[in-house]
Amino acid sequence: MSNTFGTLFKITTYGESHGSQIGGIIDGCPSNVELSYDEIQKELERRKPGQSNLVSQRKEADLVEYHSGIFEGRTTGTPIHFSIQNTNQKSKDYGNIREIYRPSHADYTYDKKYGIRDFRGGGRSSARETACRVVAGAIAKQILESKGIQIRSCVKTVHTNGLYKDEVIDWIKVESFKTRAANERLHQIFEADILKAKKEGDSLGGQVYCEVLGLPAGLGEPVFDKLHARLGAAILGINACKGFEIGSGFEGTKLKGSEHNDPFTVDEYKNVSTKTNYSGGVQGGISNGQTLYFSAAFKPTATIIQKQESITSDSQGIVYLAQGRHDPCILPRAIPIVEAMAAITVLDFYLLHQSRV
Amino acid sequence: MSNTFGTLFKITTYGESHGSQIGGIIDGCPSNVELSYDEIQKELERRKPGQSNLVSQRKEADLVEYHSGIFEGRTTGTPIHFSIQNTNQKSKDYGNIREIYRPSHADYTYDKKYGIRDFRGGGRSSARETACRVVAGAIAKQILESKGIQIRSCVKTVHTNGLYKDEVIDWIKVESFKTRAANERLHQIFEADILKAKKEGDSLGGQVYCEVLGLPAGLGEPVFDKLHARLGAAILGINACKGFEIGSGFEGTKLKGSEHNDPFTVDEYKNVSTKTNYSGGVQGGISNGQTLYFSAAFKPTATIIQKQESITSDSQGIVYLAQGRHDPCILPRAIPIVEAMAAITVLDFYLLHQSRV
Amino acid sequence: MSNTFGTLFKITTYGESHGSQIGGIIDGCPSNVELSYDEIQKELERRKPGQSNLVSQRKEADLVEYHSGIFEGRTTGTPIHFSIQNTNQKSKDYGNIREIYRPSHADYTYDKKYGIRDFRGGGRSSARETACRVVAGAIAKQILESKGIQIRSCVKTVHTNGLYKDEVIDWIKVESFKTRAANERLHQIFEADILKAKKEGDSLGGQVYCEVLGLPAGLGEPVFDKLHARLGAAILGINACKGFEIGSGFEGTKLKGSEHNDPFTVDEYKNVSTKTNYSGGVQGGISNGQTLYFSAAFKPTATIIQKQESITSDSQGIVYLAQGRHDPCILPRAIPIVEAMAAITVLDFYLLHQSRV
Amino acid sequence: MSNTFGTLFKITTYGESHGSQIGGIIDGCPSNVELSYDEIQKELERRKPGQSNLVSQRKEADLVEYHSGIFEGRTTGTPIHFSIQNTNQKSKDYGNIREIYRPSHADYTYDKKYGIRDFRGGGRSSARETACRVVAGAIAKQILESKGIQIRSCVKTVHTNGLYKDEVIDWIKVESFKTRAANERLHQIFEADILKAKKEGDSLGGQVYCEVLGLPAGLGEPVFDKLHARLGAAILGINACKGFEIGSGFEGTKLKGSEHNDPFTVDEYKNVSTKTNYSGGVQGGISNGQTLYFSAAFKPTATIIQKQESITSDSQGIVYLAQGRHDPCILPRAIPIVEAMAAITVLDFYLLHQSRV
Repeated sequence: MSNTFGTLFKITTYGESHGSQIGGIIDGCPSNVELSYDEIQKELERRKPGQSNLVSQRKEADLVEYHSGIFEGRTTGTPIHFSIQNTNQKSKDYGNIREIYRPSHADYTYDKKYGIRDFRGGGRSSARETACRVVAGAIAKQILESKGIQIRSCVKTVHTNGLYKDEVIDWIKVESFKTRAANERLHQIFEADILKAKKEGDSLGGQVYCEVLGLPAGLGEPVFDKLHARLGAAILGINACKGFEIGSGFEGTKLKGSEHNDPFTVDEYKNVSTKTNYSGGVQGGISNGQTLYFSAAFKPTATIIQKQESITSDSQGIVYLAQGRHDPCILPRAIPIVEAMAAITVLDFYLLHQSRV
Repeated sequence: MSNTFGTLFKITTYGESHGSQIGGIIDGCPSNVELSYDEIQKELERRKPGQSNLVSQRKEADLVEYHSGIFEGRTTGTPIHFSIQNTNQKSKDYGNIREIYRPSHADYTYDKKYGIRDFRGGGRSSARETACRVVAGAIAKQILESKGIQIRSCVKTVHTNGLYKDEVIDWIKVESFKTRAANERLHQIFEADILKAKKEGDSLGGQVYCEVLGLPAGLGEPVFDKLHARLGAAILGINACKGFEIGSGFEGTKLKGSEHNDPFTVDEYKNVSTKTNYSGGVQGGISNGQTLYFSAAFKPTATIIQKQESITSDSQGIVYLAQGRHDPCILPRAIPIVEAMAAITVLDFYLLHQSRV
Repeated sequence: MSNTFGTLFKITTYGESHGSQIGGIIDGCPSNVELSYDEIQKELERRKPGQSNLVSQRKEADLVEYHSGIFEGRTTGTPIHFSIQNTNQKSKDYGNIREIYRPSHADYTYDKKYGIRDFRGGGRSSARETACRVVAGAIAKQILESKGIQIRSCVKTVHTNGLYKDEVIDWIKVESFKTRAANERLHQIFEADILKAKKEGDSLGGQVYCEVLGLPAGLGEPVFDKLHARLGAAILGINACKGFEIGSGFEGTKLKGSEHNDPFTVDEYKNVSTKTNYSGGVQGGISNGQTLYFSAAFKPTATIIQKQESITSDSQGIVYLAQGRHDPCILPRAIPIVEAMAAITVLDFYLLHQSRV
Repeated sequence: MSNTFGTLFKITTYGESHGSQIGGIIDGCPSNVELSYDEIQKELERRKPGQSNLVSQRKEADLVEYHSGIFEGRTTGTPIHFSIQNTNQKSKDYGNIREIYRPSHADYTYDKKYGIRDFRGGGRSSARETACRVVAGAIAKQILESKGIQIRSCVKTVHTNGLYKDEVIDWIKVESFKTRAANERLHQIFEADILKAKKEGDSLGGQVYCEVLGLPAGLGEPVFDKLHARLGAAILGINACKGFEIGSGFEGTKLKGSEHNDPFTVDEYKNVSTKTNYSGGVQGGISNGQTLYFSAAFKPTATIIQKQESITSDSQGIVYLAQGRHDPCILPRAIPIVEAMAAITVLDFYLLHQSRV
């Protein structure tokens, strides 16, 4: 429960937004894996604040340090502890929120649960924690890639605009867009909309589309721990995520069985595939060898630079106006986090699948 | 992993569709609870096949027997084993599927995972297993109700029809509709559509809406095991479920932060509430005392009585035509299963919350 | 926690001494294993009451029935539920213990923990539950044996008599002794002592010696879940077990490091072994390929047929005299239980070791 | 599995002997607890090398730093990350052990398990890791003490000398002895013996006696997770521990049931107690309100400064002579580690017990 995710490949995270550091322990990482630190750092850059004018301007180097579990560049199988220093805590950022419950933040619920909270910058509930997931995910990705499994994602919708049915995702360009939109058309729209929201001190939500390529058939557990159930938990556990769907998802409920079923087919080399893939690569909770894909819904960021009604911790009504840096749209930065949680989940099932005698 | 769900209140299920029995063990049930067997049986009746002309006509008594953990009508805190006999296994139902991988079923993936499967009636992948979840959920519900927590749900959409924005749910009548539709208008439409699909040997999907009332603030774990992340896993683990959303979910991504944030307010008795509830009763993964609500997407049932292309286990292309009984729409029967999984999840967090010193 | 043991190969048990049945669910059993039901039943016979004049004369057929997870004689990888009927519950056995806390039994502690208990025959705390472990252990044994790993044990001491240093264990004969003593000499002594205790209505304790042969090097987890730590928990979880030691154990504390260290040696085929084996086959929590061996201490059975001082549940002092059947010495019947728990533990680590990429 | 211990109060440790730091994450620590850093540091001092001439002369400050989960001196309920810098890594200490498997160390088994190891100073298998357990244990102790539960221990035997039956433990003085012997008589003997072994480059083993006072009745889980089974795993997981016994343990097997049973008695205030306490405070796996006590066996330290036969990683026979600092007897330093693991285990059960509805 709580701050650990995974069964065989496990990540435990710690740290508050304005504490001295955040970090985590990866337990169960396969041994003798040569790690690319550059690849890990590159993933962190994709999540970093300040990477463009579309996201929070908080300045963090987000340099990751490794303290154990790696010897002469290779994993030893023992726990990998990594940490990231918090370098940009400004006291003015949180001075006025000690006694204020910000709307749609976790201030109120943390107080109800724990009776105490580190209110500075959201403390433990800050999305800063997700940097740790990105580190673990980057390691998981490297291992998966050595097995021919790849994960990629893009921003599919922002606010009311999004990918049309059958519109092509321009995978080659996605990473070059600071919006990480699915293609050029959407990038233009998203960028304009996000900048407008930023100017208005408002925020926008949207959806991420993610796919896992090269997944072998047979991963997943059939009843409670279906591959997409665990994946759903992994993704819904990301800050601001309010929805998850695998394959055809919510739209698929509008099809008939005769349209939605995926007919099996076999080629001349006896390779099995399905003609359609409404299942999203998972049937009965187990991967079927087709591309696994899912979407995730992210609400508009709770922090907006507009006056809002709220209350204090001693139950007084107030008008609250946030100050400082905020993300007008979290979607561009959500991409590496979604991929990280997907990678951790998939690797965990991959390892579990190895345990058969 | 796998066939157990829960941390403190745990359910482990077993059994195949056409084996001698299905059942489960509830471990961690609080002691000294007086159980109403009638309430449990009533929940099973809601899930039972053959309850109306809209669902599978398989005839199962679904009588639950208790073998341990209960003494003189009260729980003892030790494991409760219950079982349900399978009484309606017809050998003709599965004669021709030994070597056939049915489209969008789990036949193929089970073979890939295990190298063997009990193919009769879907074996372990049959939704028959969910009867066991309903038993555990019914017990969880009784405990929650004694704490003032209630769970209710209805069918919100079937195929392309569904609840309009702001249309009222007629909670008093839902259970009287064999469709378990949200209101009379939808019931009429759903019933006609389902009967039409049945006649055509086709199937329909749809969405369930569920809410948890009376939930105290403070339940949930902040990072990976957010209340809605665990709930998502619980619901996505139900057969045919392809999507889950909490609060405003996917639609909420189309709102701006200034519209979506839930302003706090306090009444004259110092009771805190939020003016809107886009959060769905959960903020930062922890309940905030407002109504928790979510929706779940169920794909159209994979079994249809129409010819379909498929393959055999030795990779031959075939045309497959299913026979026998099927559910043209699983939604009416999904209701008690969704409630059961929600109840188990919520009770688990409730117990966890008690563990504070 | 509680009624489940294992990480990948898991057994969950249920049932009270005088309920309708006891049983369990094995989750995570490898698929496609052909089971020998006879081997399982044979293990149950070794544990069964009434097998000789040295043990309890309760008559139980202890016939195990299988309800799931096995198809055409092979495991399917899905949960195996098995049950054993209780056929010999006599109401007179427990009539007078409803309000009595029997000395050194769990009556008092169950009441303190749960506020309620099934007092009949000890209810859940009865060693009858261990029959379920024997079933799971017998399956684990079969899988281990197919990998060349064998487990065997004998009774090493009873009361004040036991194996001398360097005295030979006559493995071929152990099972032929109804005492399951280490050799003929001890069998004679143990049998006489147990019969004498039986006649006096008293009971005797003793020690079991167990070894695991053919274990490959590399099993175990280095820090908290050392192979012998998990094994210790497995064995200490058996009713009446009060001590566990691996390798040289308590006696080994009397040696100097220069005597106790096990020098490595290598033969002409480059096979590594150790000249001595004070480590008991485990170094740093991980198997080293030598024979793993351990001992377990079992207290004298708490049930004796003699007057004892005790109290009632409403705190009145009483004199209590137990009636009926009891085990004057549990050691002969403890053997298959110890082996079962060792087998479950070792298989779990074996599977875990497979999960490496 | 592996590097995490506990169910509700969990400690995950990381770090190698000669890496940059060791540390851990405590997850599930109750919130709003005011921590005494001095008390934590004091426990570390008890474990520290160099504290007397009887133990390793490695010089480590063992100063613990806290990075999260604490706000204004109080726990917040979120993960507490703490770290301890390694300041005394000398490269000469491990230069010659890269290719050598030291007898009765974990060098060989780590290589077999992981295929790679950080050989410097034993790496992950070094007892240096136990400092992290002491930190977590010191926090657990503080919480337990606020509930009236105390843990204390002493060295009961070293080599062939030890406490006589019924000999008094001088609890007031134990901590003043650098041997942490049970009393003055033993302290004199132990000190002389340890110094002699040190001089000879040899090492001695021994036993720790530990008791938990003030434990309420009702803690523990009845079947696999008996209080003493989990405690056994906790203690056996400590480096060099080869045996564990609760209550009368191995010696108790030599008593008859009529001698060993603990008669219940009740005083004028209706307080229940037992006249004897062979059970060691646990019956049926659950605490009975009497003092819980256990003993643990520690083998002589594997590091000795004498020539030993061994092999290299490429299977060549060699003669190995260790150099540098070593502990001639680990017992005085084992005391705080045993107490820490006991405290973590007991607190975990205490929290679990709170979760009842």
